[in-house]
Amino acid sequence: MASDTLLVAGGRVLRPDATVVDADVLIDRETGRIEAVGPDLAAERDVTETLDAAGGLVMPGLVNAHTHVAMTLLRGYADDKPLDAWLREDIWPAEAALTAEDVRAGTELGLVEMIRSGTTTFADMYFHVPEIVAAVDEAGMRARVGHGVVTVGKDEAAARADVRESLDVAREYDGAADGRIRTAVMPHSLTTVDETLLREAVADAHDDGIPVHTHANETRDEVEPIVAERGERPLAYADDVGLLSASDFLAHGVHVDASEIELLAERGTAVVHCPASNMKLASGIAPVQALLDAGVTVALGTDGAASNNDLDLFDELRDAAMLGKLGADDASAVPAEAAVQMATQGGAAALSLPGGRVEAGAAADLAVVDLDAPHLAPAHDLVSHLAYAVRGSDVRHTVCDGQVLMRDRELTTLDEEEVVETARRRAVDLVARAN
Amino acid sequence: MASDTLLVAGGRVLRPDATVVDADVLIDRETGRIEAVGPDLAAERDVTETLDAAGGLVMPGLVNAHTHVAMTLLRGYADDKPLDAWLREDIWPAEAALTAEDVRAGTELGLVEMIRSGTTTFADMYFHVPEIVAAVDEAGMRARVGHGVVTVGKDEAAARADVRESLDVAREYDGAADGRIRTAVMPHSLTTVDETLLREAVADAHDDGIPVHTHANETRDEVEPIVAERGERPLAYADDVGLLSASDFLAHGVHVDASEIELLAERGTAVVHCPASNMKLASGIAPVQALLDAGVTVALGTDGAASNNDLDLFDELRDAAMLGKLGADDASAVPAEAAVQMATQGGAAALSLPGGRVEAGAAADLAVVDLDAPHLAPAHDLVSHLAYAVRGSDVRHTVCDGQVLMRDRELTTLDEEEVVETARRRAVDLVARAN
Repeated sequence: MASDTLLVAGGRVLRPDATVVDADVLIDRETGRIEAVGPDLAAERDVTETLDAAGGLVMPGLVNAHTHVAMTLLRGYADDKPLDAWLREDIWPAEAALTAEDVRAGTELGLVEMIRSGTTTFADMYFHVPEIVAAVDEAGMRARVGHGVVTVGKDEAAARADVRESLDVAREYDGAADGRIRTAVMPHSLTTVDETLLREAVADAHDDGIPVHTHANETRDEVEPIVAERGERPLAYADDVGLLSASDFLAHGVHVDASEIELLAERGTAVVHCPASNMKLASGIAPVQALLDAGVTVALGTDGAASNNDLDLFDELRDAAMLGKLGADDASAVPAEAAVQMATQGGAAALSLPGGRVEAGAAADLAVVDLDAPHLAPAHDLVSHLAYAVRGSDVRHTVCDGQVLMRDRELTTLDEEEVVETARRRAVDLVARAN
Repeated sequence: MASDTLLVAGGRVLRPDATVVDADVLIDRETGRIEAVGPDLAAERDVTETLDAAGGLVMPGLVNAHTHVAMTLLRGYADDKPLDAWLREDIWPAEAALTAEDVRAGTELGLVEMIRSGTTTFADMYFHVPEIVAAVDEAGMRARVGHGVVTVGKDEAAARADVRESLDVAREYDGAADGRIRTAVMPHSLTTVDETLLREAVADAHDDGIPVHTHANETRDEVEPIVAERGERPLAYADDVGLLSASDFLAHGVHVDASEIELLAERGTAVVHCPASNMKLASGIAPVQALLDAGVTVALGTDGAASNNDLDLFDELRDAAMLGKLGADDASAVPAEAAVQMATQGGAAALSLPGGRVEAGAAADLAVVDLDAPHLAPAHDLVSHLAYAVRGSDVRHTVCDGQVLMRDRELTTLDEEEVVETARRRAVDLVARAN
């Protein structure tokens, strides 16, 4: 019998097969795992701590499988511009002015927002990674983090230094925060990293058992030069440089053709669908139903808050289910259950991290969603509600690795007021410096 | 000096030109109009009631310009199906089982949800209109309501009776609820109402100065038969039957060609864009930027909760801004300011109802949005936040016609708990009857 237990009591539980049962969830806080899911578990043992889930749905903590969390500092800083101009005129100059302290502040703001909206786990590509690691450690979340590498426009020494930093932080921080932090090597994209360096970085990462995460096939403007220059599709090129292993995961995958979908399925490489970002930057519609049909693992990501503009994964759930239908020209495509699966099990699988399932033996990463709000009445179908009607503000409790990160909408690990205030102050300073 | 005044104090105010100023808003509750917008208005007069807007943004009450409010009772009842199958297999059988009491319960549930998310004004097409009128009267909202007419599949007498009911309720209830309720004659669509009856209904409505509201050009399946049968585009047909007056408003307008956009602009007929419904039913992407460029009045609507699945107009704001970019293949299309304009001034103009502007002389219909939540930090651009980051749950106060409908997130006119409970009970009974 576990000596330190958390009981999530009196709720309804979303099981991995998308059925819902009335059940308690008993968590062993020493192992961070779910010990049992079933009725009346409180009667059987001494419980150290109890979370009231009455009137709520206990579901897996959401997985935000592609983001740049610190970009919350740039939320609303520049909107309504094409990707290229947005990056060159606004985002890159602002990012060039970001200090390590800014990255810490922006990351903490993003973690507050994610915990509040039921996300327990995320993948982050950014820089000043030690600051991100420290924030995740403090917040109690689970993450796969990495340093984003761009080599175009840099001399050989600077380019090599950037690659080295990505490998160094991936090696140094893998297993940090009591194992909640894992890492990846993160070349920014197939067009912003030189082929030789990309090939070396991927080989070095894989030699050490470290996954690779990159942006791929996000826009037509990114796909066409590769096809023109190399005479092959971007993912054939990615495969050629060794990138498509079963532990690697690609962000976006908007403009993938049938041969690339087949390749992804064969290699077991996951795609992180970012529907809000793809809409806001007019990138296009990813063929999500076709990816699912081919057996590709699909996860969901918010992308950075500057192209979304929030980190609420419930928005992505809704967007994925809705945009998937539009893209397939079929209102039965990407049904609610598929969207929920992508946001939970799909995310955990894509990131090769625990979680994504509420069942005995799984990591105790979960969210409790209040079901009593007017916008969730009546309750014909709770899985439909998760995809189409629940919003992040309906989350009552968030638990990661058996630790309560939010109880009754109050954060327990981060000082929300201080985090928000610090981020506001730093955002104002940043704009002054960047302009 | 007004003897009965409401002061919205200490907030920032979104002006009609999308600029934001620190200002109080003074409301004359006897006329239901805004008397003044400016600094320190409390100092100048006795105020009957004060709403604290500190830390908040005072904006026009949102206008949901196309919905079927009572369909909240069917939220999540049937999802992930094509429009035709969804209507025939699920929605129409369920609607056939709806009683007047069900419509009242579903409407009240929808009104609760709208007031909570800052909507003050809406257009409703449904049946059992007297129940809807009573609910709107009680709730204190503003609406343009009407009875939806379908004549296909009915014999002549039944078809004529349906048209007559639409005209009768439009005449009877115009000006109800102290003038907050206006009406329209509402043929369901160009394909579900017989031409002769459609022509007569439109003429009778216009003779009495009553607008006409209908679904138009929502799906390709609806457009193609008209083109095939009549050799003209649907809106040319609509124009031919007299439907495109400057007070009429059309829902959807997804599949409109250049000639139809020009016709809408010439006639001054408004289009209500329903992006979530259009995505969820895979209907297509309305050419919103092209409509705006042509000078067409564009409003936003949630459509019914069965095809959305919520009545939160902030979701539509975000969807409109994002989907508009995807549809135009241009990330600068439908910028935040345009989306906000559609949800406020555009909506009021489409429905020919007061509201949509916070300025002296305008109707006192407004919402106060909390700006201090983590997902709204930092505050580089508040108009961007309204389009991309604010959600309905950020609304603190809602005011319509000078009356406070929600104060500090507590409804004042409707008993939220009872409304939700009644709707839940009736939804369960309805499903039992419909199956």
